[in-house]
Amino acid sequence: MKVAIVLYPRFTSMDTVGPYEVLARLPDTEVIYVAEQPGRLTNDLGSLTIDVAASLDDVTDPEVVLIGGGPGQADQMSDGKLHEWLRAVDQTSAWTTSVCTGSLILAASGVLAGRRATSHWMALDQLPQFDVIPTKERVVIDGKYATAAGVSAGVDMALTLAAQLKGEQEAQAVQLIIEYAPEPPYDAGSPDSAPAAVVADVRKRLSARFDG
Amino acid sequence: MKVAIVLYPRFTSMDTVGPYEVLARLPDTEVIYVAEQPGRLTNDLGSLTIDVAASLDDVTDPEVVLIGGGPGQADQMSDGKLHEWLRAVDQTSAWTTSVCTGSLILAASGVLAGRRATSHWMALDQLPQFDVIPTKERVVIDGKYATAAGVSAGVDMALTLAAQLKGEQEAQAVQLIIEYAPEPPYDAGSPDSAPAAVVADVRKRLSARFDG
Repeated sequence: MKVAIVLYPRFTSMDTVGPYEVLARLPDTEVIYVAEQPGRLTNDLGSLTIDVAASLDDVTDPEVVLIGGGPGQADQMSDGKLHEWLRAVDQTSAWTTSVCTGSLILAASGVLAGRRATSHWMALDQLPQFDVIPTKERVVIDGKYATAAGVSAGVDMALTLAAQLKGEQEAQAVQLIIEYAPEPPYDAGSPDSAPAAVVADVRKRLSARFDG
Repeated sequence: MKVAIVLYPRFTSMDTVGPYEVLARLPDTEVIYVAEQPGRLTNDLGSLTIDVAASLDDVTDPEVVLIGGGPGQADQMSDGKLHEWLRAVDQTSAWTTSVCTGSLILAASGVLAGRRATSHWMALDQLPQFDVIPTKERVVIDGKYATAAGVSAGVDMALTLAAQLKGEQEAQAVQLIIEYAPEPPYDAGSPDSAPAAVVADVRKRLSARFDG
């Protein structure tokens, strides 16, 4: 089984590394990072550089396609080589998936038209312009399309996919290997549970990116 | 504030990328990946390569030191340049920290002597040989030493550190930005909760690494 994870400049690292850590541990599975322009790609915060060896052309028939989000997503919204590739691999993929604002890129490419999908909570309201039904859940499955909410939600999505691809016992084995029994010190990971002052602060911080 | 994250060949990627995603979002904070031999370092699974620019010598006085785990940990247990650096930066660090089997390296360097610490659940029994008290908790704080359990536990540790370093409201803001409201599809992330057959399977799979 081949899994292609798409990277582009100014990606958010955990968006893809979280699900990578799950999917790359599945038996008989090859995970390949791909980029339109391979080489050294630096993340949104400027301090983590991943060296991507494969170009989009190198991976033509992945069973699973995954694209993450990050501030660089805004530069990937125009039709062009990446969107063409997403539409092409979606023809034969078993799963087409995203984390965080990666769903905006999938949506812009057209492959999510008419589907339910999620995204980072600040970005959900951008989905309808692409004929996508915004769905405020951590992991949304609609047919073969799996989308995850912001950043850390990719781990939950990947475990859900792992069960679909290799069975529940395999998904549970990977969960135990990565000791994924989360104990967040605060209940602040959702705008519905975080203190109002924290939500207001984060809305302000992210407004340039999401409302700009 | 300077945070140094130590990498070495055959690291487990989420061990450091998880806490990176939290710590690098804190205000007035610079996170630097460092390695004894900088350059392209490939992870345990062979399909993710991080390009590390800084050597240990480049970072002499970080406020926070973090080292992750992975199969490559076994090659970092002998006294030498890395251990010397760990002992040196520990003299002035505000926090000396680890994720997963990174605690075995800290322990072998001597800085955890007499302390309580955790590690990957399969590795806890290796701590006493370094005069460290194995402590089966997700995040263990003993003085300025913070250690996290396996792989994914680094995110919980980093949020705990974020609150200590920058206050609770800042930690909650980062938690909301990365939408960390986990919903694991199974309750299999700990040997205490996973089905017995899954625990037995994982013990067998990891035995070469941990019991070998």
